[in-house]
Amino acid sequence: MKDNTTLLLNTTLTTLVENKKYNTIKDILLTMNPVDIAEIFGEVPEQKLPILFRLLPQDQAAETFAEMDTEQQQTLIEGFSDHELKEVVNELCADDAADLVDDMPANVVKRILRQADPEMRRMINELLKYPEDTAGSIMTPEFVRLRPEMTVDQAIISIRRTGLEKETINDCFITDRGSRLMGTVSIRTLIVSRADAVIQDIMNEHAISVEVKEDQEVVARMFDKYNLMVLPVVDAEDHLVGIITVDDVLDVLKKETTEDMELMAAITPSDSDRPYIKTPVVELWKNRIPWLLLLMVSATVTGFIITRFEKALSVYVILTAYIPMLMDTGGNSGSQTSVTVIRALSLQELEFKDLFQAIWKEMRVALLCGATLAVVNFAKLMVIDRVGTVVAAVICCTLLVTVFVAKITGCVLPMVAKKLGFDPAVMASPFITTIVDALSLLIYFRFATVFLGI
Amino acid sequence: MKDNTTLLLNTTLTTLVENKKYNTIKDILLTMNPVDIAEIFGEVPEQKLPILFRLLPQDQAAETFAEMDTEQQQTLIEGFSDHELKEVVNELCADDAADLVDDMPANVVKRILRQADPEMRRMINELLKYPEDTAGSIMTPEFVRLRPEMTVDQAIISIRRTGLEKETINDCFITDRGSRLMGTVSIRTLIVSRADAVIQDIMNEHAISVEVKEDQEVVARMFDKYNLMVLPVVDAEDHLVGIITVDDVLDVLKKETTEDMELMAAITPSDSDRPYIKTPVVELWKNRIPWLLLLMVSATVTGFIITRFEKALSVYVILTAYIPMLMDTGGNSGSQTSVTVIRALSLQELEFKDLFQAIWKEMRVALLCGATLAVVNFAKLMVIDRVGTVVAAVICCTLLVTVFVAKITGCVLPMVAKKLGFDPAVMASPFITTIVDALSLLIYFRFATVFLGI
Repeated sequence: MKDNTTLLLNTTLTTLVENKKYNTIKDILLTMNPVDIAEIFGEVPEQKLPILFRLLPQDQAAETFAEMDTEQQQTLIEGFSDHELKEVVNELCADDAADLVDDMPANVVKRILRQADPEMRRMINELLKYPEDTAGSIMTPEFVRLRPEMTVDQAIISIRRTGLEKETINDCFITDRGSRLMGTVSIRTLIVSRADAVIQDIMNEHAISVEVKEDQEVVARMFDKYNLMVLPVVDAEDHLVGIITVDDVLDVLKKETTEDMELMAAITPSDSDRPYIKTPVVELWKNRIPWLLLLMVSATVTGFIITRFEKALSVYVILTAYIPMLMDTGGNSGSQTSVTVIRALSLQELEFKDLFQAIWKEMRVALLCGATLAVVNFAKLMVIDRVGTVVAAVICCTLLVTVFVAKITGCVLPMVAKKLGFDPAVMASPFITTIVDALSLLIYFRFATVFLGI
Repeated sequence: MKDNTTLLLNTTLTTLVENKKYNTIKDILLTMNPVDIAEIFGEVPEQKLPILFRLLPQDQAAETFAEMDTEQQQTLIEGFSDHELKEVVNELCADDAADLVDDMPANVVKRILRQADPEMRRMINELLKYPEDTAGSIMTPEFVRLRPEMTVDQAIISIRRTGLEKETINDCFITDRGSRLMGTVSIRTLIVSRADAVIQDIMNEHAISVEVKEDQEVVARMFDKYNLMVLPVVDAEDHLVGIITVDDVLDVLKKETTEDMELMAAITPSDSDRPYIKTPVVELWKNRIPWLLLLMVSATVTGFIITRFEKALSVYVILTAYIPMLMDTGGNSGSQTSVTVIRALSLQELEFKDLFQAIWKEMRVALLCGATLAVVNFAKLMVIDRVGTVVAAVICCTLLVTVFVAKITGCVLPMVAKKLGFDPAVMASPFITTIVDALSLLIYFRFATVFLGI
């Protein structure tokens, strides 16, 4: 959130930078959060960035660095001496370091890995092994490992020795000699237990864990469902290889939600994490045009249907006037259902086995909605438009049947898409609208043929 | 996630319940997570619920209870003796207890409050004071409070004494004698610091906090932005009144995302947290019909425009065939932009001050998309449809201008809506489509009049 205080601070800092008041800047930065510092650094002229960055103490520098844009990180690294790079890289969390290596061009990566300590290099290489979007790609290997035979006192001494380098000490993980996960113990349990209690006796043996290859969206849903703060990650043989913390899950949820919304609006989700305002025009075009083309070509069907009924339309030109209303109402009815179903599928509130229950529910909602709309519309057609009873009947019957068909389509398509292994979010407004358009026209002309005897 | 193991377990338990193997059930339940137990209890016949519930040990019982549906909670409470109710209620977290009181009918609330300990009753009443959707409504007053002059040793003793009743001990909060927030200290800092270090010297004085009246969505975005695990909540005079933990934020984000998606699909977000499959048909109808009616009436404008150009259409009936394609493409183009903009606004990546920058971006994207579509369509019209150059020109010029207008509309409306204090999510596909439909028809008939000399 960029509130007024931040904006004010930003202006102050810009003036201070211009006047080279570096000691004052340093004092201000010391009171600030790395996220806010990164945000402000994002608005500073590029050539000033290295000078400002050098004002930060070592640990704050690494945290700020981790929060910056890829472009700025690259600018900074290119300005760093080897010694400066070493200090920043080895101060980073292992997962941030792996993300950095993932984002940088090859020559920068080489420099980073050369400056990384052997242990850091090992962790980076380990993390980069896991495919994108899996549990492995968002975990960190920096967790507190305890042995089952330790006493609480020994455990706390061990945490005191190594705790500063770990992602979290709030939960500790117990492994056997083969480094298989045996259980977890929270720092709260350690603190309230007797000093001579044995870890094995106080640990939670039924801790939830996740396999390293699991999809990150499934991981995120587990955090949500079980109210987790941290989740141990194991390999196929149950060896503990890392942990995932809830802050990384927030990022996953944010990304997955954006992707769902983009798919629902017929946009190819973008790979980069760039905010909208920084996304190049050509990239936006590339993400949008294939769907527009596809949907435009699909809409040819509606044109084809209209052409077939050209004769009928030239007799009753008035029928043309209601085509947009019928198509829009059908599209909206279908979208309502498809978005509801897609969201329920994504939250795992709905599964394929509930298909018939969902259809039955939508059938009843569709009848209620369709009937309401038809009655209101009939009144309007008779009183305001004065189109005559038969034409009004054609339009209102079409409305009723279209809403019914639209809602069933909007319910079935996402569920079937998911069953077939596609992302159900694709089956949202644009596709549903295109399909329902064609169906509503067919229904319309069918009723027109029957009622008006064309 | 309901995987096969859970399903299998579910079947096993059902059989065990039928055969009254309560000891076996108890052994199984003891190994399970409260969330899973609540899920399985959700599928047990209602009259068996109290028996099964009584098999759980006290702390697991309270946690399981907190995870259950409102209906099941009510069933259980109605079956509880006063003593049982007392045990469950006082074992609940304060925020869960307040939620419970919020959800139950008046007579049940009376019983709950009568069985609550004075301290619990005080906390519940305190929490219920805060309006829904504010920071106050999702916080808990059960946090660890330390004094600035304490040593680390004294702090740990204090945590050991009271820590089990707190929501978390991972972060502790330091207040002055007036109970104003002075700073925070993590359990990690306490563990790694010397026993005689003074809290005042090791605490973080620049901790981020939030005002109790702040909107919960803003709170959620703060957690996301600053990677927080916990956030202290203060009143207008900076008195510490509670804390919010990240697991409550996940729920907020989930709810807000669902609401955004519903609004985008022209559905009134539902107040209840009921999953889709359990939402009554009439409620679904109530959430959907007002928007369908509103949009149907708005679509009247398109009908009116078509009626005005009836003469032109009866001369060139072929023009009618392309109305749906033009309207759909316009609608899709507009929706792409509006959803992108709405999402960027929601993630605070975009602000009203960026309006002109966003319009400029969309203008260029629109030209690229419009030109691509127009060229492809022109080729199709000439080669496949063979409509003649002039008609093809009318259609393709309309396409280009429609896409342009649609994308600008899709960009401006959500940003203006937000500026005016409305939820920008309303300005998504359905509204954009209705507006763009009318605009595209006007453009279409304008070009037709000029090019075809009607």
